[in-house]
Amino acid sequence: MNIREKNHEELKEICHQIREKILATVSKNGGHLSSNIGAVELTVAMHYVFNIEKDPFIFDVSHQCYAHKLLTGRWDSFETLRQFNGVCGYTKPTESPCDYFVAGHSSTSISLAIGAAKAIKLKGEDRIPVVLIGDGSMSAGMVYEALNELGDRKYPVVIILNDNEMSIAKPIGAVSKYLSQAMAGKFYQKIKQRMEQFLTYLPEGATYMAKKFEESLKLITPGLLFEELGLEYIGPVDGHDLESLIETLQIAKEMGKPVIVHAQTLKGKGYEKAEGYYEKWHGVGPFDLKSGKSLGTSSSKNATELFSEGLLRLASLHEDVVGVTAAMPSGTGMDKLIEKFPERFWDVAIAEQHAVTSMAAMAKEGFKPFIAIYSTFLQRAYDQIIHDCCLMNLNVVFAIDRAGIVGEDGETHQGAFDLSFLYPIPNMTLFAPRCPQSMEHAITYAYAHQGPCAFRYPRGTFLECGEHAGSVFEYGKGEVLEEGETSVFIGYGKGVGKAWATKQLVKKEMNPALVDLKFLKPLDEELLLGLAQRYSQWYVFSDSAKCGGVGAILSHWLQTQGILTVHVKSFEYGDAFIEHGKTALIEEHLGVSPETIAKSLKIT
Amino acid sequence: MNIREKNHEELKEICHQIREKILATVSKNGGHLSSNIGAVELTVAMHYVFNIEKDPFIFDVSHQCYAHKLLTGRWDSFETLRQFNGVCGYTKPTESPCDYFVAGHSSTSISLAIGAAKAIKLKGEDRIPVVLIGDGSMSAGMVYEALNELGDRKYPVVIILNDNEMSIAKPIGAVSKYLSQAMAGKFYQKIKQRMEQFLTYLPEGATYMAKKFEESLKLITPGLLFEELGLEYIGPVDGHDLESLIETLQIAKEMGKPVIVHAQTLKGKGYEKAEGYYEKWHGVGPFDLKSGKSLGTSSSKNATELFSEGLLRLASLHEDVVGVTAAMPSGTGMDKLIEKFPERFWDVAIAEQHAVTSMAAMAKEGFKPFIAIYSTFLQRAYDQIIHDCCLMNLNVVFAIDRAGIVGEDGETHQGAFDLSFLYPIPNMTLFAPRCPQSMEHAITYAYAHQGPCAFRYPRGTFLECGEHAGSVFEYGKGEVLEEGETSVFIGYGKGVGKAWATKQLVKKEMNPALVDLKFLKPLDEELLLGLAQRYSQWYVFSDSAKCGGVGAILSHWLQTQGILTVHVKSFEYGDAFIEHGKTALIEEHLGVSPETIAKSLKIT
Repeated sequence: MNIREKNHEELKEICHQIREKILATVSKNGGHLSSNIGAVELTVAMHYVFNIEKDPFIFDVSHQCYAHKLLTGRWDSFETLRQFNGVCGYTKPTESPCDYFVAGHSSTSISLAIGAAKAIKLKGEDRIPVVLIGDGSMSAGMVYEALNELGDRKYPVVIILNDNEMSIAKPIGAVSKYLSQAMAGKFYQKIKQRMEQFLTYLPEGATYMAKKFEESLKLITPGLLFEELGLEYIGPVDGHDLESLIETLQIAKEMGKPVIVHAQTLKGKGYEKAEGYYEKWHGVGPFDLKSGKSLGTSSSKNATELFSEGLLRLASLHEDVVGVTAAMPSGTGMDKLIEKFPERFWDVAIAEQHAVTSMAAMAKEGFKPFIAIYSTFLQRAYDQIIHDCCLMNLNVVFAIDRAGIVGEDGETHQGAFDLSFLYPIPNMTLFAPRCPQSMEHAITYAYAHQGPCAFRYPRGTFLECGEHAGSVFEYGKGEVLEEGETSVFIGYGKGVGKAWATKQLVKKEMNPALVDLKFLKPLDEELLLGLAQRYSQWYVFSDSAKCGGVGAILSHWLQTQGILTVHVKSFEYGDAFIEHGKTALIEEHLGVSPETIAKSLKIT
Repeated sequence: MNIREKNHEELKEICHQIREKILATVSKNGGHLSSNIGAVELTVAMHYVFNIEKDPFIFDVSHQCYAHKLLTGRWDSFETLRQFNGVCGYTKPTESPCDYFVAGHSSTSISLAIGAAKAIKLKGEDRIPVVLIGDGSMSAGMVYEALNELGDRKYPVVIILNDNEMSIAKPIGAVSKYLSQAMAGKFYQKIKQRMEQFLTYLPEGATYMAKKFEESLKLITPGLLFEELGLEYIGPVDGHDLESLIETLQIAKEMGKPVIVHAQTLKGKGYEKAEGYYEKWHGVGPFDLKSGKSLGTSSSKNATELFSEGLLRLASLHEDVVGVTAAMPSGTGMDKLIEKFPERFWDVAIAEQHAVTSMAAMAKEGFKPFIAIYSTFLQRAYDQIIHDCCLMNLNVVFAIDRAGIVGEDGETHQGAFDLSFLYPIPNMTLFAPRCPQSMEHAITYAYAHQGPCAFRYPRGTFLECGEHAGSVFEYGKGEVLEEGETSVFIGYGKGVGKAWATKQLVKKEMNPALVDLKFLKPLDEELLLGLAQRYSQWYVFSDSAKCGGVGAILSHWLQTQGILTVHVKSFEYGDAFIEHGKTALIEEHLGVSPETIAKSLKIT
């Protein structure tokens, strides 16, 4: 389909069909709903004005890339959205050459556009990068690092700012407030005309003043912030008005400069139940289209809920407990704490670096901050963890949600690396709860712990651990849950449940001991020395990357102790990025589900 | 000394003495010169207006903390500046309670101030955080993440923007340009007065217009950018005029809001040879005060020079070679490339995240980017390395300067962790040159390599490796330099020279083989299997943290191969942050100098 040959009515019809398709698919498969149906006209206009055959189309965080996927050869396969081996929920160049870059973490788009623009200039090509970025992505510092260069070097780049005043959660921060004043623009357009007429009555010498006055009017349009940074600004435009969008983008494209086109859209546009809602309809599981009700139900509480409830209890008991989330209030369960204690818990928008360092200062002032960030996003604050928390040896707690495989979001979101990158940091303590009961103990322990510490827990529910409901955490102490013969299953976090489940499957063939490491840093050396004496084969169960993971850490520890009598085999993730799909399917595919592990154990 | 009891003349004299003291000490010990002598009046004014006994004094990156140290009980000990066990070159709370936070990486200060302000509010205390931040630190995104919250929540914080229009290197970026227009302020003050007079002649209905006109004038003062973000702005003020500084800070302190005080200073003020220079006088080694000439000379080229020359040769041969530095042009040797190829090499200011991701896009476009960042600063772009480079499997080269101990800069700057945090990333290739010759080969190899790769090299010179001048790099291939008996010394990067030197010291007692690992990822399994057959004791030499380091990686590899016959002992850094001081002293202190290693080998 060549969209450029369509007339206006046909384009409108295409938008309608895209919305229907997205609604039908997301209600079945889950996915990002409101951001995607809100950006349909923007995407169609992009494809109309720019040339997907040559221009880099850059979708920030790509929460709004579904329409683009449907327009670029993935209409029929779209039903497999977010399924294993199906269409990815994010842009992915290996899926289609029309997807310029992988994007699942926010705020990278303008940097990418600058890199592309530099390359285009060097190659002397006639192409122009076009970026679609939501207002929610504008809070991350990386955007300003990029704008700072763009405003200075002035590469031709068109940035469509998709301003739905919502981002994932409620809009936060000064920039967001700033943008929300945009609608005042029309009013001032009128004022401007009247004032210009008035100025023509003034004596000639006042032309300088007229110019200044012109500038003064810019003050009250939302573009000023960007103009101050050296960028051209057009807007605000109605992001659902295809005709004016196309016209505006055409102008922007031909300016040969960096331009921000400020488009206002309604998140959830076209599905009444989602329109005007904040976080609820951003990312959804399967739901009934008619009623809007969720189809998925879980009988047991997921780890995030357990964390949220536990932290709420802790915060009710202790006034020094404070906390932060970076734009994931309900995703991390911090929403309940912000609601109950708005003076002690904050959403600081997508700003992981600032979240961590500001809490470091609170710890210095004697408070006990809980920083709840997904494993994959914690990567964005690595230097702040090292330089501002651990070097200062402060009482900061990192509550790492979504550790391990996260399922349908896929390779940009898997929580595989947190162990590996936190372990080398001096002063850091690492531990993990194995079950709902031990989650409560983990929170209690974290509160009492002196120095920086981090505990991880999975997306969704913990696995069953038989009769081994979690006990209290004591610094650096692991726990032997079951003694056995010859071999031992050593679990960490959710890995303990996996070890337990595996043990049930291999009971006929072997009788391994079962151990919960509980602390990865420091290791329980006394316990491990005992295990080394009793068990010559260690099997390690953890939802983490093999490189730098639990098995690697134990292998190294054995060497530091001079122990050469123990074999270590680790059931962690191999050295590759992990695809999207249902967690159970992915684990099976990787050979790290209890069933596949049991199978491999029976063979050896 | 209570500075608040001094009169104006006495304060001026104090400033003079501080400058003399700094000049005398830095010319002897090396250190940050021009930023420190440029901020003397600012610091004295801070101490006059704010109360060091209670207010958090936050020095961004603390390149300007010497005057503060001299004013807070460290006058006599200042002669030990940057020496082992002496006064640290950066703020350090364990050295003095007057140092609020550790700061050696830039742009953390406003986040810290927000955290402190939140704490102060909760505790209901009468204190106010005061920040001193240079314009160079304003390019990092973290500052905007913080301003975004500050402008919204409006905690009382005074931010002194020390605008010396220089930062470390030349000022870069739109924000910097923006600030440099500040001096125009006075001119517009006059215009404003004249126009206001003129407006009084207009009919009454024009008062609205007068108000708008007032606003239009703000347009041309440098404060607008900050005012748009919801902050109060005062300035620009002369940062060397103590009287007006004190007056201005007093006003700012009493406003009860977030305020930016924009002070203009001359970097290097008071030492004529340094005034007006950019990077040269920022951080210096010992020099002759009279002539300004450096006292330190090295006969052999340091690794940075070798990198710079090698990359220059490569870039001259291949037009697709491009590169970036984040505000360290001469520190990384990129200055020569930017000078020769200004269209292909860039300084993007302190903006590591943007630097990495923009180069990822250039790689996607078919260019071969070299990203030269110090080991310690690479931590700031961790997510960008994973999400934008490695997930995309792009041909991006990370040239990691300052790997290992960096000497006098100390614990915020040691390059200890890069191996550990890069190793777990899928698609990444890690290698390291051992000597000047192999640095050239490393650059050549990096150019040809497909996929993301990183090579590390030390601050200063490589160590001698005897007759083993580096050979070419071949993917995943290590090199046996000398066969031996029973044991093998395995080196990585500069560690090879250390292994060689150690071998010379233990020749009487043992005859170890000598191996250059060359590649850490992937490991040369064939070579290692051979070593495991021949040598049951492996000694590992690498300038990196033990946790997740080379020894740990080899230990894990042995386990994955089921090899239980090899002892691994690693001479890497223990699990603690590493103090400042001359590298040789620090290595001796940590037991990782050739001499101390040899001694420990002789005992066992």
